[in-house]
Amino acid sequence: MNGDAALRERAARVIPGGLWGHMRVQGLPAGFPQFFQRADGCRLWDADGREFIDFMCSWGPVVLGHHDAEVEAAAEAQRRAGDTMNGPAPVLVDLAETFTAMVAHADWTIFAKNGTDATTICVTTARAATGRRKLLVARGAYHGAAPWCSPSLAGVTAEDRVHLVPYRYNEIASLEQAAAACGDDLAGVLASAFRHDYGVDQELPTREFAHAARELCDRSGAALILDEVRAGGRIDLAGSWESMGVRPDLSAWSKAIANGHALAAVTGTDRFREAAASIFVTGSFWCGAVAMAAALATLRKLQAVDGIAHMLAMGQRLRDGLARQAAAHGFRIRQSGPPQMPMLLFDDDPEAALGSAFCSLALERGVYLHPKHNMFLSVAHRPQDIDQALQATDSAFAALALR
Amino acid sequence: MNGDAALRERAARVIPGGLWGHMRVQGLPAGFPQFFQRADGCRLWDADGREFIDFMCSWGPVVLGHHDAEVEAAAEAQRRAGDTMNGPAPVLVDLAETFTAMVAHADWTIFAKNGTDATTICVTTARAATGRRKLLVARGAYHGAAPWCSPSLAGVTAEDRVHLVPYRYNEIASLEQAAAACGDDLAGVLASAFRHDYGVDQELPTREFAHAARELCDRSGAALILDEVRAGGRIDLAGSWESMGVRPDLSAWSKAIANGHALAAVTGTDRFREAAASIFVTGSFWCGAVAMAAALATLRKLQAVDGIAHMLAMGQRLRDGLARQAAAHGFRIRQSGPPQMPMLLFDDDPEAALGSAFCSLALERGVYLHPKHNMFLSVAHRPQDIDQALQATDSAFAALALR
Repeated sequence: MNGDAALRERAARVIPGGLWGHMRVQGLPAGFPQFFQRADGCRLWDADGREFIDFMCSWGPVVLGHHDAEVEAAAEAQRRAGDTMNGPAPVLVDLAETFTAMVAHADWTIFAKNGTDATTICVTTARAATGRRKLLVARGAYHGAAPWCSPSLAGVTAEDRVHLVPYRYNEIASLEQAAAACGDDLAGVLASAFRHDYGVDQELPTREFAHAARELCDRSGAALILDEVRAGGRIDLAGSWESMGVRPDLSAWSKAIANGHALAAVTGTDRFREAAASIFVTGSFWCGAVAMAAALATLRKLQAVDGIAHMLAMGQRLRDGLARQAAAHGFRIRQSGPPQMPMLLFDDDPEAALGSAFCSLALERGVYLHPKHNMFLSVAHRPQDIDQALQATDSAFAALALR
Repeated sequence: MNGDAALRERAARVIPGGLWGHMRVQGLPAGFPQFFQRADGCRLWDADGREFIDFMCSWGPVVLGHHDAEVEAAAEAQRRAGDTMNGPAPVLVDLAETFTAMVAHADWTIFAKNGTDATTICVTTARAATGRRKLLVARGAYHGAAPWCSPSLAGVTAEDRVHLVPYRYNEIASLEQAAAACGDDLAGVLASAFRHDYGVDQELPTREFAHAARELCDRSGAALILDEVRAGGRIDLAGSWESMGVRPDLSAWSKAIANGHALAAVTGTDRFREAAASIFVTGSFWCGAVAMAAALATLRKLQAVDGIAHMLAMGQRLRDGLARQAAAHGFRIRQSGPPQMPMLLFDDDPEAALGSAFCSLALERGVYLHPKHNMFLSVAHRPQDIDQALQATDSAFAALALR
């Protein structure tokens, strides 16, 4: 009883709603599998044995591809020594030094397990450092799944969010207005590396917006907090706003930093060091050494092979191909955000019916795409994988045109 | 530069305070190592190569001993298939079924990564189910490190805790008084499996208290939430209050359930199933299949070898020996809580100076004890390990008497 349908039936009995959170398949078109039996490189096999070229990369974590030999060798070596012990292993220091050297604004690093841990640590540190409470947050942005930031209000109290003040991403006037509403109680400005909200076109930050956010924080003494959880490791290892010359005070990292091993990180500047040491944050597994060894190998390999340039090239190859195919088959599509984190939406498709139909047709042809969420490339995607995927999407567009 | 002193020096530069959270060595006497290079069974080697018989078990997670062959074989088999994929592996269903069958009150299970995730999910579920906000929490109890529950108030706002109402563990009148203060807004009663607060004698729940908490929740419609994060897996796999005939509505599990792999779990009854499906909780690695495979093997082995009975026997052997030795050397000590989770405190030792000195002397003799926090036994502790540790503690008591 290990086919997808049977597994779903069993899961529905012992797991509320069949699954929690972002991997719950209800948001996807019928035919998308819930359970996966195997993964390798940029390919996945579902519980029914269907093989897919994968463009979700486990929703971000798998940045070098599944079973990367160097990462797994490093993890295995650490595993033979020890993982969760009474304190950290030496690899913690190697990794903290690597992070602090790699991320331009970083004077220090803290490790955790969830992206939500990392964003929460940033906010708590900002409040501890400033003695203030208010936090500017972009409307529609996802910063985690704790009561203060979860996209659902079920079980959340008004007080969990009473100090959040919304602004619109990339709109300086909105940011300034939100800051003004905080008076002298502004602790921090939280911004995603770029706008990657669910179901809408992605949007890179404008240089003006990034500098305005930095300047606002400099002027007010608030912390500029960059949420790199989703984008970190795919845009710029020094920090996603580095190319614009803007450095945050605090950054939250997770997903891609350990190639699928559970790890998160917070980096910060010396101004926030004492505050970061004053807050109490911890978890039973946060000093787990295997994930740290995996992260060290992941970051080293991303640097050594210029993984980001490769993902960008592969993403561009996919994007160019999809654009040509859509035009050839008479569809108007929009592809937004950085090519290594693709988002594909159809024009005049507010309910994503067309996008969902296209993704279903692609899935049947062996390509795993998402109709509403940004996707991810990995270093394991080779030109021949992209080209094979494009053969499938061409056929999917053709089938879509015949519907 | 990988000795403990050198590592601390390097860590101080790149990590605030040298380390975050409960594994930061500052709470321990001088001489306690911060970094560990290796672990095996019930033994640890610090970064300077010193070997210890370990009674912290990584602060709880290591319940079968480091490198348990069956757990690691299961983890490795799943690793060869896939870990963090686009959705869960079939092992999720096996594990959820196992949990739901094992825990007496459980009709369903959700998995997460941190104990804090699990306690937070319980609270959020209770609020979603009841539409109420207030939560009774025992004074001094540890339920995690998020702003709503962290033992430090640095960076925490008043609103993060505005709906918490304190009571005294094991004091029924205090519990009832706290409930009365909530009027018709009582969402839940949170209680640890037993009282295991930092630096004070541990206290098992009285049968009267457990039944009073259950009855209060039945009467008011609030959720009885049992925090099994620290005790779960070492008292009773069916639930730590099962022997008293008291079943909670929701339970939070973590630490020991996967023998050191990062995993947490929430179990609940059907009354709370819909609410648990309605809240949005998730993490990038929560569907990681390797930790689930490790958990399945851990729980099966704990059941197969009656691991709890073994830990109880080994803990009692240690406790009896320490009691004899203390008396023989003229020290008055108190050993509290379940023997498999020992707490050793000296009489007339409010600052734990005597306890710290004793633990330092034991450490020098190859035994890792904690002077202020409860400790942990594992299935890997054999009678000869306990007896070897007792030889060291006898010598430590003798040295302490000569000070």
